[in-house]
Amino acid sequence: MIIMGIDPGFAIMGFGVIDYRGNRFRTLDYGAITTPAKMILPNRLLLIEEGLNALIDKYKPEAVSVEDLFFNTNTKTAIKVGQGRGVALLCAARAGISVHEYTPLQVKQGVTGYGRADKSQVQYMVKVLLGLNETPKPDDAADALAIAICHAHSYRNLDKTCGL
Amino acid sequence: MIIMGIDPGFAIMGFGVIDYRGNRFRTLDYGAITTPAKMILPNRLLLIEEGLNALIDKYKPEAVSVEDLFFNTNTKTAIKVGQGRGVALLCAARAGISVHEYTPLQVKQGVTGYGRADKSQVQYMVKVLLGLNETPKPDDAADALAIAICHAHSYRNLDKTCGL
Repeated sequence: MIIMGIDPGFAIMGFGVIDYRGNRFRTLDYGAITTPAKMILPNRLLLIEEGLNALIDKYKPEAVSVEDLFFNTNTKTAIKVGQGRGVALLCAARAGISVHEYTPLQVKQGVTGYGRADKSQVQYMVKVLLGLNETPKPDDAADALAIAICHAHSYRNLDKTCGL
Repeated sequence: MIIMGIDPGFAIMGFGVIDYRGNRFRTLDYGAITTPAKMILPNRLLLIEEGLNALIDKYKPEAVSVEDLFFNTNTKTAIKVGQGRGVALLCAARAGISVHEYTPLQVKQGVTGYGRADKSQVQYMVKVLLGLNETPKPDDAADALAIAICHAHSYRNLDKTCGL
């Protein structure tokens, strides 16, 4: 199953595309869509849409996994990040891709087995699980890969639970 | 100039389309795009996009006016509203329409001349300025019309300031 993880934002939107089959991960792509600070917000959202659509066209993910962001932020930041997140959800919905949301705690739990793991531990496990030589950069891309891995693990557990 | 005001949200997105020419207003349309509470969020955003695109196609506004929402709300609501707002800005950007943002204070000031006007005063002035028989319903539509009027007045003042 091809999963695209997204770490939403408007200045930088991290993405990570993985293929999860037979308990094994293959990394297809990761990186970040960045938008110029000097550009007006509507056009930045347009750039994000174009970038995400191109990734969806290329990798045709079966699931999109996005972090739930109701934490650790102020209202002003929340609205801004929410705007980028809305565009990401829209792109997925338009392509008919199922969207799955995970809290930061679920992502940490899903990737390291420990909900209070710190950032470096999560990044280390992303590197190990995906068999990468280096920690993915930027951090937003590593986060997006972690969110994708979290969905792969949750999906597997769900399969077991449901006896599928 | 045709102006579309938008009161952003994800459950209900108010809109108001006015034509402002020679210091006179003409109301072209107003109402709200509503999305079912039982629908998953990505599909609700898709409905909003479809609704806004249809309005943009029909009225071809030259400007979109949106309220700045950095106030009076908690983080969770801010993210949710931000998501709807992001879709609205995206639709405008995709159609090449300029987007203008106004704070609630600016909207009140622009519609009633008084930044601390209450809701009923704003609604009354919307009704009077647009020559409507009744206060527009729902409130989200009235708010969207107020935001559109605010842009019309600001635009006029800007014209004067710039000596255009």
